Amino acid sequence: VLRQVAGRAAPAVGKGAILVVATKGIERDSLAIMTRVAEEELPGRAVVALSGPSFAAEVATHQPTAIVAASTDATAAERAQLAFSSPEFRVYTNDDVVGVELGGALKNVVAIAAGAVAGRGLGENARAALVTRGLAEMARLGEALGARRETLMGLSGLGDLLLTATSPTSRNYRFGQELGRGRSPRELLAPGAALSEGAFTAEAACRLAATVGVELPVADAVRRVLAGDLTVDAAVELLLARRPAARE
Amino acid sequence: VLRQVAGRAAPAVGKGAILVVATKGIERDSLAIMTRVAEEELPGRAVVALSGPSFAAEVATHQPTAIVAASTDATAAERAQLAFSSPEFRVYTNDDVVGVELGGALKNVVAIAAGAVAGRGLGENARAALVTRGLAEMARLGEALGARRETLMGLSGLGDLLLTATSPTSRNYRFGQELGRGRSPRELLAPGAALSEGAFTAEAACRLAATVGVELPVADAVRRVLAGDLTVDAAVELLLARRPAARE
Repeated sequence: VLRQVAGRAAPAVGKGAILVVATKGIERDSLAIMTRVAEEELPGRAVVALSGPSFAAEVATHQPTAIVAASTDATAAERAQLAFSSPEFRVYTNDDVVGVELGGALKNVVAIAAGAVAGRGLGENARAALVTRGLAEMARLGEALGARRETLMGLSGLGDLLLTATSPTSRNYRFGQELGRGRSPRELLAPGAALSEGAFTAEAACRLAATVGVELPVADAVRRVLAGDLTVDAAVELLLARRPAARE
Repeated sequence: VLRQVAGRAAPAVGKGAILVVATKGIERDSLAIMTRVAEEELPGRAVVALSGPSFAAEVATHQPTAIVAASTDATAAERAQLAFSSPEFRVYTNDDVVGVELGGALKNVVAIAAGAVAGRGLGENARAALVTRGLAEMARLGEALGARRETLMGLSGLGDLLLTATSPTSRNYRFGQELGRGRSPRELLAPGAALSEGAFTAEAACRLAATVGVELPVADAVRRVLAGDLTVDAAVELLLARRPAARE
């Protein structure tokens, strides 16, 4: 979708413009992150990714919020920072675009898994263990793709995951809750149902991880449950028991 | 307290016994972690720290739970693992005792701060930003004291923090909520009030951090609020605005 929008907008966007990308995901065919898509469709413009723990309703009501503006172009990141900052809305710059974007995309997948654990009634201990594993796999994939581990442990990684994977305000978490309560993936993914970005990201993330030889147990379980290859119970059993009697 | 109990129990504890320490904290005078205290009072016995995201009520009802048994003595860690493991209660070993214990102790302090943000009505975005900073300072202190960063990002660090700093089931979080709602530290710390371990840990953690030249902005803010040196509003302002217009 971003590719189509950006492609159509291209003629109207000046060469000096800075593109600020707030959407998260991994393009299904190319496995590209969103800033890459924007760069390809609008070559020559500086691109900034905006990401971090930011429920829209709280931003709209001026609750304190802190996010990240990431770009390989430091000047562009600083201009975006200046443009979006307010006393309640704090924007930090980062040059690790891949880390920031992967955090934003993968946290939706982990949020589905966390929601499913909660929806299945397995409690907060299990959800915490699952989210911990989820962040570990986010960091592993990030590092393999050249991101900095600390970016995944920052606002746009851990921070956003924390928000998304523990709160029914998140669409992805709610989607997972419904799965955990027994609704079928087919029904939840039907046209017209509430959109869960993570449901689309899971499969692309697994293919992206395979290109660098990294395993994503949480994303893979989500992918298989959504494909109808695995029940929620079997997925939970796999994820919470993967290394029995093992070292942490 | 652990020192007194351990000291009194010493004569009854055989030399081959393994001590399993489940309490969290930093001793006020010596700044020692709890396994150190146990080792000093019961010299010659193997000591294991047990820590991780585990609300007692869920463990008691056999909800899935995953925690860590940490010891410098691998055999002792494995024996504790074997003794406590069940299909629903998974125990992973780790040799990074300092990392595991610091995570368990410091997460209570961050949970107070997170509870205060929530109690003050500042929303989930702000709480996520605060907890992200909290984990970063936990990892900084851990590394300075010889712990592995990944331990702080594991079950006994991030996992336990995630649980404790987002759920009113945690005493420390509830203590923070009350602070945020305007109750005075004096009242909350009065004899007979509900115990918050983090309220005691905050000050010791700051002194411990000073010995290795590390700053703990979150713990220091909690310490100052509890000492009556800072209001909750001023603390939040400090914590969420510490690096305005900065890099992440």
